[in-house]
Amino acid sequence: MEAAGRYPIAIKIKGIGHSVPKKLVTSDELERKYKLEAGWCSRKLGISGRYWVTKESAAELCAQASAEAFQKADIDPGEIDLILNASNTFDRILPDQSIQIKDKLNLTDPQIGCISVNCGCLSALAALDLGGALIASGVAKQILIVASLISSPGFNEKNIQESAALGDGAAALILGAAKPQEDSCLYGARMETYSGAHGIKGFKGMKEHETLFSKDILFDDLTFEFDSQTMQQEGMKYNKNFVSRLFPVDKKCLQMIIPNQSTRIASDMMKLMFPSRKVFTVIDQYGNIGAAGHIMALYHAVENNLIKRGDLVLLHGMGAGLSIYGVLLKY
Amino acid sequence: MEAAGRYPIAIKIKGIGHSVPKKLVTSDELERKYKLEAGWCSRKLGISGRYWVTKESAAELCAQASAEAFQKADIDPGEIDLILNASNTFDRILPDQSIQIKDKLNLTDPQIGCISVNCGCLSALAALDLGGALIASGVAKQILIVASLISSPGFNEKNIQESAALGDGAAALILGAAKPQEDSCLYGARMETYSGAHGIKGFKGMKEHETLFSKDILFDDLTFEFDSQTMQQEGMKYNKNFVSRLFPVDKKCLQMIIPNQSTRIASDMMKLMFPSRKVFTVIDQYGNIGAAGHIMALYHAVENNLIKRGDLVLLHGMGAGLSIYGVLLKY
Repeated sequence: MEAAGRYPIAIKIKGIGHSVPKKLVTSDELERKYKLEAGWCSRKLGISGRYWVTKESAAELCAQASAEAFQKADIDPGEIDLILNASNTFDRILPDQSIQIKDKLNLTDPQIGCISVNCGCLSALAALDLGGALIASGVAKQILIVASLISSPGFNEKNIQESAALGDGAAALILGAAKPQEDSCLYGARMETYSGAHGIKGFKGMKEHETLFSKDILFDDLTFEFDSQTMQQEGMKYNKNFVSRLFPVDKKCLQMIIPNQSTRIASDMMKLMFPSRKVFTVIDQYGNIGAAGHIMALYHAVENNLIKRGDLVLLHGMGAGLSIYGVLLKY
Repeated sequence: MEAAGRYPIAIKIKGIGHSVPKKLVTSDELERKYKLEAGWCSRKLGISGRYWVTKESAAELCAQASAEAFQKADIDPGEIDLILNASNTFDRILPDQSIQIKDKLNLTDPQIGCISVNCGCLSALAALDLGGALIASGVAKQILIVASLISSPGFNEKNIQESAALGDGAAALILGAAKPQEDSCLYGARMETYSGAHGIKGFKGMKEHETLFSKDILFDDLTFEFDSQTMQQEGMKYNKNFVSRLFPVDKKCLQMIIPNQSTRIASDMMKLMFPSRKVFTVIDQYGNIGAAGHIMALYHAVENNLIKRGDLVLLHGMGAGLSIYGVLLKY
């Protein structure tokens, strides 16, 4: 999407919340249990712990994160008119996960719409971008954006190196119009998609022309395969000057850069382009929580007073495709 | 979403396309093969034929439908800036289906963004509503909306009565801004979501607190169960006066009503509220093609000159949740 000149859009993140399952799984535990070298998870993945569900559902975690976001925003849940669910995984095929979240929040007003938005790990950025358009056009007034990933129930113990990188969790925010005297806005947003695999080899165990819901697929055999070196190289190539294409803002004005919290590659890449101290991640304590990562990092940045109202924050992500999404917020 | 007063939005459907797999499966064939009473499919389901994939992927069908939509709109595919995929099923977990469709269309311009939108069988209506907001706010200029369902590879022959109701297929449209002298617009849109199951019993074979991607789920055992009588009763209750809540337009002004093409219930219900001759369906020739149904019906309505520019057309759907979506178009 090319939309220079349409921004800024006067929106404001009014409150942010988060939720993780009760069970914390430390890297020490995993290394002992699976006979990995001590310190392997921290060194190789940059992760010291992650949370894995026991009985929690994605909708429950989303509802908890949303409840905290409502509280932080100091608004009544009934004051929203739309739930935009940007989760990577869902509890049931039907009804849509956004509706399951509404049910868990006990929101009975039928006028609160429920829609899901997806573009892999960049889904929360797409939800912010679409949310801005919905508010700017007047189609929605106040939106709950919520994202989650629950992948641990599908783990294959044979691939512990891969499973160890993943965490379960949810994060949510309330998006509304900024008042005329407020400085907050969506300063710009840009998505670029480059055809081709770019290091993503896809899923081992899935044949060409096989549909995901085919009965011939053995879920146990599905392993996501990618070549991290190729991904990083291609990513660097396409990311060059991405920020100036997004918005001609002096990089020095950026207070914080939040990359996707999927692998170390994403943050390492941003550290080559921006001062390390400005690149903020929470992967160490949560692992890769998919599309929930951006909002989770933003939550911690705000809670720890690392950013304040009016600061320019770049939410950036690279996803399978290869896609690049940048959302530039005046928080 | 409550957005009265924000509409009309000056958008126009510039072209519509469709695609189905090569293999037509007639109801006669199925009745013979599975020893069903002759005429059972027509009588019970209202379906005389449906298309099932042999080797076609969802992305391929989507690309074919999109190519026809570009041709009908007489625009170059490179003139869109966003693909909004509103499909119910997808070929791969990653990258997002919208990107796989872009690849199949050989669209190499990185500025064409790719996002998926989902709310079950109402996804195409959500895409039209969000598309309107994106164009009104200037965030996107011209959008490809494409929807598909491929469910036949997962069929369980034990449940042939259910499988017989489903078809595979795709449909697409190009959404752009209407010129000042053009009459076309999004006259209004409304989504209502009512908590609770409302006759949807969910999936047999799936335990409470079980995540869809859990390795414990046997896909063969998953059967969607619902109580059609309860659904219709509850649907009628909530649909009463829905159209006047959507927009205070005299029902007589509506040229056509396109219900979701999922089951006969949806069209039967609309026929209780509107003159039968105005309720248009294509379920007889395609079966239930999920979110692709609305655009597929619109395609045939336009191709057969049943509606013309400036006519008021209501796209209406009830989905699991229970959700009701209405999109009122001045075609």
